[in-house]
Amino acid sequence: MHEDVGAYRPDEARALFRAGLRTPTAGWCTGRTQANLIAVPRDFAYEVLLFAQRNPKPCPVLDVSEPGATSTAIFDGDLRTDLPAYRVYRDGEAAGEVDDVREYWRDDLVAFLIGCSFTFEDALLAAGVPIRHLEQGRNVPMYRTSTPCRSAGDLGGPLVVSMRPIPPHLVATAVRVTSRYPAVHGAPVHVGDPSALGIADLDRPDFGDPVDVHDGEIPVFWACGVTPQAAVMATRPPLAICHAPGHMAITDARDAELAVP
Amino acid sequence: MHEDVGAYRPDEARALFRAGLRTPTAGWCTGRTQANLIAVPRDFAYEVLLFAQRNPKPCPVLDVSEPGATSTAIFDGDLRTDLPAYRVYRDGEAAGEVDDVREYWRDDLVAFLIGCSFTFEDALLAAGVPIRHLEQGRNVPMYRTSTPCRSAGDLGGPLVVSMRPIPPHLVATAVRVTSRYPAVHGAPVHVGDPSALGIADLDRPDFGDPVDVHDGEIPVFWACGVTPQAAVMATRPPLAICHAPGHMAITDARDAELAVP
Repeated sequence: MHEDVGAYRPDEARALFRAGLRTPTAGWCTGRTQANLIAVPRDFAYEVLLFAQRNPKPCPVLDVSEPGATSTAIFDGDLRTDLPAYRVYRDGEAAGEVDDVREYWRDDLVAFLIGCSFTFEDALLAAGVPIRHLEQGRNVPMYRTSTPCRSAGDLGGPLVVSMRPIPPHLVATAVRVTSRYPAVHGAPVHVGDPSALGIADLDRPDFGDPVDVHDGEIPVFWACGVTPQAAVMATRPPLAICHAPGHMAITDARDAELAVP
Repeated sequence: MHEDVGAYRPDEARALFRAGLRTPTAGWCTGRTQANLIAVPRDFAYEVLLFAQRNPKPCPVLDVSEPGATSTAIFDGDLRTDLPAYRVYRDGEAAGEVDDVREYWRDDLVAFLIGCSFTFEDALLAAGVPIRHLEQGRNVPMYRTSTPCRSAGDLGGPLVVSMRPIPPHLVATAVRVTSRYPAVHGAPVHVGDPSALGIADLDRPDFGDPVDVHDGEIPVFWACGVTPQAAVMATRPPLAICHAPGHMAITDARDAELAVP
């Protein structure tokens, strides 16, 4: 075991998870891209991919598997065993949290790997922007907004955003840094005034945990990967396999490759 | 009529084309985004969209229609009449060039609007980078390469590139300017040495026209929108409707919106 989980290579981390280690992946495999997993039957795949194409900020697709395949170009492991924990959904309803989904996997499942804000949070910290939920040891607060996504067939729903309170003199830095990462939600969708997004109370997020907003700090909102999960589940696919929250797919891709000039 | 075709608004240009004007669209509607059109039956749409997701440099999807729809979010006209000319393909074979495809349109056709290098050529000219094929009044030279695309189901084939000869002191400028436009092929895929791409003779392009390369100029290669067209036709869809070369879809989107910081 490495003392610092950031020192693991992706293949080492995946082997540990395959062997049964169950842990959130924040901080693991420094510099490697972590991803959301959503696997759905092939019959649902076009709408998921089209929804992502139409809503690239909340749904940055990093890779898509062949139907039934258990690895992808950027994930040289076994999608059924190499994440630390999974959530299985039947007809859109949670049907259990497990650490191995081999018994559920089907030959027609298409796996979508979708970018995750862990990538840009590392870049924000490196640029000196504090991240409150990390300071407080909490999950990031997330909110349903009154902004609809562009729908794709039956797939639709509100944009979900995450919020990070930023000191006014660092707002421009936060915008600049995250805009370099369009593959992981990119620049904020909104700066300040939660009510314009239909958010009544920052202390009551729809997902995750509330965080302290200090006097004078500006709430800054980024598109969130919960958006496609919520839209997909609302269409009630017969089977969907997702990562458990915070227990991401650790890919072989490098965060640096996702940055644009 | 405007004296300068660049002064037309997109809706004015589309009305002229709908009324029968048949002209290449280079230079029309300055600042508005022109796009390649590929419309295929819904049964083929997932593979086209997945091919594009896996090969974003040659296949930058700007918009996708609903099945059977005749407009899209960025094209507020009639896709069946408002391009100056179309090519119709049956079973992957050219079946005629027409200026109205209403009689061919089907309720299950999905239209893909794909970015076109006209956008970044304007930006190159504005940055002082000369564009030889424009100077010579020719079509840009395009070449099949020995680099395969990532395939998607039955869709696959070689990367096709366009080539522009650039003076050495402007190569970095050309890279910098085009890298700001990932939605229209982005940065070059290759600078110099055609043989490394499997190109034997720059004077014999596979598509378009040869252009003069002056002593000391560097051939610079960009991913090309012919790539997806060639891949789609190779799968022989029963029906495909495309723009005629150079006779693009003029959208309501603005080139400036496609630039990244």
